[in-house]
Amino acid sequence: MKKAIVLLSGGMDSCVTASCAKADGFNLSFLHINYGQLTESRELKSFGLIADFFNVKNKMIINMKYFSKIGGSCLTDSNINVPEANLDSKEIPISYVPFRNANILAAATSWAETIDASRIYIGAVEEDSSGYPDCRRSFYDLFEKTINEGTKPTTSIKIISPLIYLSKKEIVLKGISLNSPLELTWSCYKNEENPCKKCDSCLLRERGFKQAHVKDPILT
Amino acid sequence: MKKAIVLLSGGMDSCVTASCAKADGFNLSFLHINYGQLTESRELKSFGLIADFFNVKNKMIINMKYFSKIGGSCLTDSNINVPEANLDSKEIPISYVPFRNANILAAATSWAETIDASRIYIGAVEEDSSGYPDCRRSFYDLFEKTINEGTKPTTSIKIISPLIYLSKKEIVLKGISLNSPLELTWSCYKNEENPCKKCDSCLLRERGFKQAHVKDPILT
Repeated sequence: MKKAIVLLSGGMDSCVTASCAKADGFNLSFLHINYGQLTESRELKSFGLIADFFNVKNKMIINMKYFSKIGGSCLTDSNINVPEANLDSKEIPISYVPFRNANILAAATSWAETIDASRIYIGAVEEDSSGYPDCRRSFYDLFEKTINEGTKPTTSIKIISPLIYLSKKEIVLKGISLNSPLELTWSCYKNEENPCKKCDSCLLRERGFKQAHVKDPILT
Repeated sequence: MKKAIVLLSGGMDSCVTASCAKADGFNLSFLHINYGQLTESRELKSFGLIADFFNVKNKMIINMKYFSKIGGSCLTDSNINVPEANLDSKEIPISYVPFRNANILAAATSWAETIDASRIYIGAVEEDSSGYPDCRRSFYDLFEKTINEGTKPTTSIKIISPLIYLSKKEIVLKGISLNSPLELTWSCYKNEENPCKKCDSCLLRERGFKQAHVKDPILT
């Protein structure tokens, strides 16, 4: 059985991505990145619950708290406020963590090469990604080439992004069709008991469920 | 004055690379990566001394100890012995840390984008790099393209590898011509008081100084 690493933040997109990887028939390993995001404790709770759901034993939590030292984003610097959402803006929002996904994919590749996994699944979404440059398929295509140039000749790793061209609505529907445990996921950029319903991530999620005509199981 | 980040391990190559960046007229920031290498404490000492020499205040030390969790290399897993050198081998040696340089460059890029630095200097050497796939210019060329795809449209970062096609002999001579503080550097893969003179890194350094007809200032 071929191995795949799934990048699992604990959010809805990564959870549905894990369901896709399972449906594709891979032996799963889950990788969670703590990059100093303000929601880390809440995300980690979801990560553990989702790993239990999928019965995945091969889990790794990698500490990239250096992102807090680097700063430059409201997700990693508590001095920068999380702004209220503006889904129509064409600007790259302040929640963009500079080149974050390259750091995450590089670590995932190091692990994949060591355990001989041939796939890295990432739940990136181009349309709904608030314009983050490191959430686009063109970026993953280049990163994949870079992997195959910078690893051993015998190593072959592909980056799979099954949600990349889906809307949030379609992700909700795909998750439901794959029996993905959406009730265990967390999307809000704030670290509170309940989702704030005001940040970009909450609004994108809310819109997705609304358009899919499904009730979000995390909302009471 | 344009800004450059120099990846400074504390070894001879990165020290000479810092001298090149200075000669190129950049305002320098130094980045050191602690990736769980067994020689970390010794490297860090050299990093501090070299930063003092160049009077660089903008220093960052990033913790990537997750490489010890990932393992797969004698540099990050104390259960794997550092083998004696075999400079004629065509195999990728066990000191190869899977995709390490991509992790390092990704972090450097995140910092560069945040502080608006336009160059990342890395002291990689293709010929003497023991065959590491992530030490080749073809890899850096692709990584550079990946950077420019995965960062903001206004961000432009180049990866400069001034030593990439030099031999160790030529690096020694370049260092001397630039008054690089070679006496402050550390190359050995072991964490002892004096260089072991047996590992790949020691042998490459020794051969370089010998061919340059120069005495290595760290050898008493």
